[in-house]
Amino acid sequence: MDIFFMLNALDEAKKAFDDDETPVGAVVVKDGVIIGRGRNERSSKHLPLAHAEINAISEAAKAIDNWRLDGCALYVTLEPCIMCAGAIMETRVARVVYGARDPKAGAAGSLYDVLNDRRMPHRCNVTGGVLDVECSALLKKFFLAKRVSARSR
Amino acid sequence: MDIFFMLNALDEAKKAFDDDETPVGAVVVKDGVIIGRGRNERSSKHLPLAHAEINAISEAAKAIDNWRLDGCALYVTLEPCIMCAGAIMETRVARVVYGARDPKAGAAGSLYDVLNDRRMPHRCNVTGGVLDVECSALLKKFFLAKRVSARSR
Repeated sequence: MDIFFMLNALDEAKKAFDDDETPVGAVVVKDGVIIGRGRNERSSKHLPLAHAEINAISEAAKAIDNWRLDGCALYVTLEPCIMCAGAIMETRVARVVYGARDPKAGAAGSLYDVLNDRRMPHRCNVTGGVLDVECSALLKKFFLAKRVSARSR
Repeated sequence: MDIFFMLNALDEAKKAFDDDETPVGAVVVKDGVIIGRGRNERSSKHLPLAHAEINAISEAAKAIDNWRLDGCALYVTLEPCIMCAGAIMETRVARVVYGARDPKAGAAGSLYDVLNDRRMPHRCNVTGGVLDVECSALLKKFFLAKRVSARSR
Protein backbone atom coordinates (compact mmCIF):
# COMPACT_ATOMS: atom_id res chain seq x y z
CA MET A 1 0.00 0.00 0.00
CA ASP A 2 2.94 2.39 0.57
CA ILE A 3 3.64 2.38 -3.15
CA PHE A 4 0.00 3.05 -3.99
CA PHE A 5 -0.20 6.09 -1.72
CA MET A 6 3.22 7.36 -2.80
CA LEU A 7 2.02 7.22 -6.41
CA ASN A 8 -0.82 9.49 -5.33
CA ALA A 9 1.67 11.88 -3.73
CA LEU A 10 3.71 11.73 -6.94
CA ASP A 11 0.60 12.71 -8.93
CA GLU A 12 0.38 15.83 -6.76
CA ALA A 13 4.08 16.52 -7.38
CA LYS A 14 3.48 16.28 -11.14
CA LYS A 15 0.72 18.89 -10.86
CA ALA A 16 3.22 21.17 -9.05
CA PHE A 17 5.70 20.53 -11.89
CA ASP A 18 3.07 21.55 -14.45
CA ASP A 19 2.52 24.76 -12.47
CA ASP A 20 6.27 25.52 -12.59
CA GLU A 21 6.66 24.84 -8.88
CA THR A 22 9.35 22.71 -7.25
CA PRO A 23 7.63 19.34 -7.71
CA VAL A 24 6.76 18.02 -4.27
CA GLY A 25 3.44 16.33 -3.48
CA ALA A 26 1.81 14.79 -0.42
CA VAL A 27 -1.28 12.92 0.74
CA VAL A 28 -2.63 12.21 4.23
CA VAL A 29 -4.20 8.78 4.75
CA LYS A 30 -6.54 7.65 7.53
CA ASP A 31 -7.88 4.08 7.71
CA GLY A 32 -6.79 3.42 4.15
CA VAL A 33 -8.52 6.50 2.72
CA ILE A 34 -6.87 9.69 1.42
CA ILE A 35 -8.32 12.58 3.45
CA GLY A 36 -5.91 15.33 2.38
CA ARG A 37 -3.91 16.17 -0.73
CA GLY A 38 -1.34 18.88 -1.20
CA ARG A 39 1.34 20.07 -3.56
CA ASN A 40 3.92 22.78 -3.34
CA GLU A 41 2.23 26.08 -4.24
CA ARG A 42 4.66 28.55 -2.81
CA SER A 43 5.23 30.62 -5.95
CA SER A 44 1.90 30.28 -7.72
CA LYS A 45 -0.16 31.31 -4.71
CA HIS A 46 2.41 33.74 -3.23
CA LEU A 47 2.11 31.74 -0.03
CA PRO A 48 5.57 31.26 1.41
CA LEU A 49 4.50 28.46 3.70
CA ALA A 50 2.43 26.48 1.18
CA HIS A 51 4.60 23.37 1.10
CA ALA A 52 2.96 20.12 0.00
CA GLU A 53 2.88 18.71 3.54
CA ILE A 54 1.33 21.88 5.04
CA ASN A 55 -1.39 21.89 2.37
CA ALA A 56 -2.14 18.17 2.77
CA ILE A 57 -2.21 18.41 6.58
CA SER A 58 -4.50 21.46 6.48
CA GLU A 59 -6.92 19.72 4.11
CA ALA A 60 -6.91 16.56 6.26
CA ALA A 61 -7.54 18.48 9.50
CA LYS A 62 -10.45 20.25 7.80
CA ALA A 63 -11.83 16.95 6.45
CA ILE A 64 -12.02 15.34 9.89
CA ASP A 65 -12.68 18.63 11.70
CA ASN A 66 -9.85 17.93 14.12
CA TRP A 67 -6.34 19.34 14.38
CA ARG A 68 -5.09 16.04 15.81
CA LEU A 69 -4.24 13.66 13.00
CA ASP A 70 -3.96 10.65 15.32
CA GLY A 71 -3.59 7.42 13.38
CA CYS A 72 -2.92 9.24 10.11
CA ALA A 73 -0.03 8.64 7.74
CA LEU A 74 1.55 11.32 5.57
CA TYR A 75 3.09 10.32 2.25
CA VAL A 76 5.38 12.92 0.71
CA THR A 77 7.72 12.73 -2.28
CA LEU A 78 10.58 14.60 -0.55
CA GLU A 79 11.91 14.34 3.01
CA PRO A 80 10.14 17.06 5.05
CA CYS A 81 11.97 20.31 5.88
CA ILE A 82 12.18 21.68 9.44
CA MET A 83 8.94 23.65 9.14
CA CYS A 84 7.00 20.65 7.85
CA ALA A 85 8.55 18.27 10.38
CA GLY A 86 7.41 20.72 13.07
CA ALA A 87 3.91 20.77 11.56
CA ILE A 88 3.85 16.94 11.54
CA MET A 89 4.71 16.93 15.25
CA GLU A 90 2.18 19.66 16.03
CA THR A 91 -0.61 17.61 14.44
CA ARG A 92 0.48 14.25 15.90
CA VAL A 93 0.75 12.48 12.53
CA ALA A 94 1.46 8.83 13.41
CA ARG A 95 3.56 7.85 10.40
CA VAL A 96 5.56 9.60 7.69
CA VAL A 97 6.57 7.88 4.45
CA TYR A 98 8.82 9.91 2.17
CA GLY A 99 10.37 9.33 -1.24
CA ALA A 100 13.62 11.17 -1.95
CA ARG A 101 16.05 12.13 0.80
CA ASP A 102 17.01 15.79 1.20
CA PRO A 103 20.55 15.70 2.58
CA LYS A 104 20.84 19.51 2.81
CA ALA A 105 17.53 20.45 4.39
CA GLY A 106 15.69 17.27 5.44
CA ALA A 107 14.45 17.08 9.02
CA ALA A 108 13.49 13.41 9.08
CA GLY A 109 16.99 12.02 9.54
CA SER A 110 19.24 14.13 7.30
CA LEU A 111 19.98 17.64 8.64
CA TYR A 112 17.75 17.11 11.68
CA ASP A 113 15.87 14.13 13.08
CA VAL A 114 12.88 15.98 14.50
CA LEU A 115 10.41 13.13 13.97
CA ASN A 116 12.40 10.79 16.15
CA ASP A 117 13.46 13.17 18.91
CA ARG A 118 13.02 11.49 22.28
CA ARG A 119 12.84 14.86 24.04
CA MET A 120 9.54 15.67 22.35
CA PRO A 121 6.10 14.56 23.54
CA HIS A 122 5.25 12.90 20.21
CA ARG A 123 7.23 10.74 17.82
CA CYS A 124 6.25 9.21 14.55
CA ASN A 125 7.23 6.16 12.66
CA VAL A 126 9.30 7.09 9.59
CA THR A 127 9.94 5.16 6.37
CA GLY A 128 12.15 6.76 3.72
CA GLY A 129 13.09 5.86 0.17
CA VAL A 130 9.68 4.71 -1.15
CA LEU A 131 9.74 5.34 -4.93
CA ASP A 132 12.80 7.51 -4.32
CA VAL A 133 14.07 7.05 -7.89
CA GLU A 134 10.81 8.34 -9.37
CA CYS A 135 10.51 11.18 -6.83
CA SER A 136 14.13 12.28 -7.37
CA ALA A 137 13.83 12.03 -11.16
CA LEU A 138 10.97 14.54 -11.18
CA LEU A 139 12.93 16.99 -9.02
CA LYS A 140 16.03 16.60 -11.21
CA LYS A 141 13.99 17.17 -14.36
CA PHE A 142 12.60 20.39 -12.84
CA PHE A 143 15.96 21.82 -11.77
CA LEU A 144 17.63 20.81 -15.05
CA ALA A 145 14.92 22.67 -16.98
CA LYS A 146 15.43 25.71 -14.74
CA ARG A 147 19.19 25.70 -15.40
CA VAL A 148 18.74 25.33 -19.16
CA SER A 149 16.20 28.17 -19.13
CA ALA A 150 18.55 30.41 -17.08
CA ARG A 151 21.45 29.76 -19.49
CA SER A 152 19.41 30.57 -22.57
CA ARG A 153 18.44 34.02 -21.29
CA MET B 1 11.88 50.24 19.78
CA ASP B 2 12.06 46.55 20.70
CA ILE B 3 9.82 47.19 23.71
CA PHE B 4 7.33 49.14 21.59
CA PHE B 5 6.95 46.33 19.04
CA MET B 6 6.87 43.65 21.73
CA LEU B 7 4.00 45.51 23.40
CA ASN B 8 2.18 45.22 20.07
CA ALA B 9 2.88 41.48 19.99
CA LEU B 10 1.64 41.29 23.58
CA ASP B 11 -1.59 43.01 22.52
CA GLU B 12 -2.10 40.19 20.01
CA ALA B 13 -1.38 37.62 22.74
CA LYS B 14 -4.04 39.24 24.93
CA LYS B 15 -6.57 38.88 22.11
CA ALA B 16 -5.68 35.17 21.94
CA PHE B 17 -6.20 34.96 25.72
CA ASP B 18 -9.63 36.52 25.36
CA ASP B 19 -10.45 33.89 22.71
CA ASP B 20 -9.42 31.09 25.12
CA GLU B 21 -6.32 30.29 23.07
CA THR B 22 -2.81 29.79 24.44
CA PRO B 23 -1.83 33.48 24.55
CA VAL B 24 0.96 34.00 22.02
CA GLY B 25 1.11 37.02 19.72
CA ALA B 26 3.44 38.28 17.02
CA VAL B 27 4.07 41.20 14.68
CA VAL B 28 6.31 41.54 11.62
CA VAL B 29 8.06 44.87 11.18
CA LYS B 30 9.66 46.35 8.05
CA ASP B 31 11.36 49.74 8.05
CA GLY B 32 9.79 50.59 11.38
CA VAL B 33 6.24 49.77 10.26
CA ILE B 34 4.13 46.78 11.34
CA ILE B 35 3.17 44.92 8.15
CA GLY B 36 1.80 41.73 9.72
CA ARG B 37 0.01 40.79 12.92
CA GLY B 38 -0.85 37.36 14.20
CA ARG B 39 -2.05 35.53 17.25
CA ASN B 40 -2.47 31.90 18.09
CA GLU B 41 -5.77 30.74 16.59
CA ARG B 42 -5.27 26.99 16.57
CA SER B 43 -8.41 26.02 18.48
CA SER B 44 -10.81 28.79 17.49
CA LYS B 45 -10.25 28.41 13.75
CA HIS B 46 -9.63 24.65 13.79
CA LEU B 47 -6.36 25.39 12.01
CA PRO B 48 -3.66 23.23 13.57
CA LEU B 49 -0.85 25.30 12.10
CA ALA B 50 -2.23 28.75 12.96
CA HIS B 51 0.48 29.78 15.40
CA ALA B 52 1.00 33.50 15.96
CA GLU B 53 4.22 33.58 13.90
CA ILE B 54 2.69 31.73 10.95
CA ASN B 55 -0.26 34.13 10.90
CA ALA B 56 1.93 37.24 11.19
CA ILE B 57 4.35 36.00 8.51
CA SER B 58 1.49 35.14 6.14
CA GLU B 59 -0.08 38.57 6.59
CA ALA B 60 3.27 40.30 6.07
CA ALA B 61 4.05 38.31 2.90
CA LYS B 62 0.64 39.25 1.55
CA ALA B 63 1.12 42.92 2.48
CA ILE B 64 4.34 43.26 0.48
CA ASP B 65 3.32 40.66 -2.14
CA ASN B 66 6.56 38.79 -1.62
CA TRP B 67 7.36 35.55 0.17
CA ARG B 68 10.83 36.83 1.02
CA LEU B 69 10.72 38.91 4.17
CA ASP B 70 14.23 40.30 3.68
CA GLY B 71 15.02 43.05 6.17
CA CYS B 72 11.97 42.21 8.30
CA ALA B 73 11.92 41.61 12.04
CA LEU B 74 9.50 39.28 13.80
CA TYR B 75 8.47 40.07 17.37
CA VAL B 76 6.83 37.20 19.21
CA THR B 77 5.89 36.79 22.86
CA LEU B 78 7.14 33.18 23.10
CA GLU B 79 10.27 31.54 21.69
CA PRO B 80 9.29 29.99 18.32
CA CYS B 81 8.66 26.24 18.05
CA ILE B 82 10.34 24.08 15.40
CA MET B 83 7.60 24.64 12.83
CA CYS B 84 7.70 28.41 13.26
CA ALA B 85 11.51 28.52 13.28
CA GLY B 86 11.39 26.61 9.99
CA ALA B 87 8.87 29.11 8.61
CA ILE B 88 11.13 31.98 9.69
CA MET B 89 14.04 30.42 7.79
CA GLU B 90 11.85 29.70 4.75
CA THR B 91 10.84 33.36 4.51
CA ARG B 92 14.32 34.79 5.25
CA VAL B 93 13.19 36.90 8.23
CA ALA B 94 16.28 38.94 9.18
CA ARG B 95 15.71 39.27 12.90
CA VAL B 96 13.65 37.55 15.59
CA VAL B 97 12.91 39.14 18.95
CA TYR B 98 11.08 36.96 21.44
CA GLY B 99 9.75 37.40 24.95
CA ALA B 100 9.52 34.28 27.10
CA ARG B 101 11.84 31.32 26.62
CA ASP B 102 10.31 27.90 25.93
CA PRO B 103 12.78 25.43 27.44
CA LYS B 104 10.77 22.37 26.38
CA ALA B 105 9.89 23.21 22.78
CA GLY B 106 11.75 26.38 21.76
CA ALA B 107 13.79 26.24 18.56
CA ALA B 108 15.63 29.54 18.92
CA GLY B 109 18.24 28.33 21.38
CA SER B 110 16.38 26.05 23.82
CA LEU B 111 15.49 22.60 22.41
CA TYR B 112 16.95 23.46 18.99
CA ASP B 113 18.91 26.41 17.65
CA VAL B 114 17.52 26.43 14.11
CA LEU B 115 17.83 30.19 13.61
CA ASN B 116 21.56 30.11 14.17
CA ASP B 117 22.45 26.89 12.34
CA ARG B 118 25.56 27.44 10.24
CA ARG B 119 24.65 24.53 7.96
CA MET B 120 21.64 26.41 6.63
CA PRO B 121 21.66 28.97 3.82
CA HIS B 122 20.05 31.67 5.98
CA ARG B 123 20.55 32.76 9.55
CA CYS B 124 18.85 35.43 11.55
CA ASN B 125 19.80 37.66 14.36
CA VAL B 126 18.02 36.61 17.57
CA THR B 127 17.26 38.59 20.73
CA GLY B 128 15.42 36.82 23.54
CA GLY B 129 13.94 37.95 26.84
CA VAL B 130 12.30 41.23 25.77
CA LEU B 131 9.38 41.82 28.17
CA ASP B 132 9.76 38.19 29.21
CA VAL B 133 8.15 38.78 32.61
CA GLU B 134 4.99 40.21 31.02
CA CYS B 135 4.89 37.54 28.28
CA SER B 136 5.38 34.71 30.79
CA ALA B 137 2.83 36.15 33.20
CA LEU B 138 0.10 36.03 30.55
CA LEU B 139 0.92 32.40 29.70
CA LYS B 140 0.98 31.43 33.41
CA LYS B 141 -2.37 33.16 33.98
CA PHE B 142 -3.85 31.16 31.08
CA PHE B 143 -2.57 27.76 32.22
CA LEU B 144 -3.50 28.43 35.85
CA ALA B 145 -7.08 29.23 34.78
CA LYS B 146 -7.14 26.02 32.73
CA ARG B 147 -6.00 23.95 35.72
CA VAL B 148 -8.55 25.54 38.05
CA SER B 149 -11.29 24.97 35.47
CA ALA B 150 -10.25 21.31 35.02
CA ARG B 151 -10.30 20.72 38.80
CA SER B 152 -13.74 22.22 39.23
CA ARG B 153 -15.33 19.90 36.68
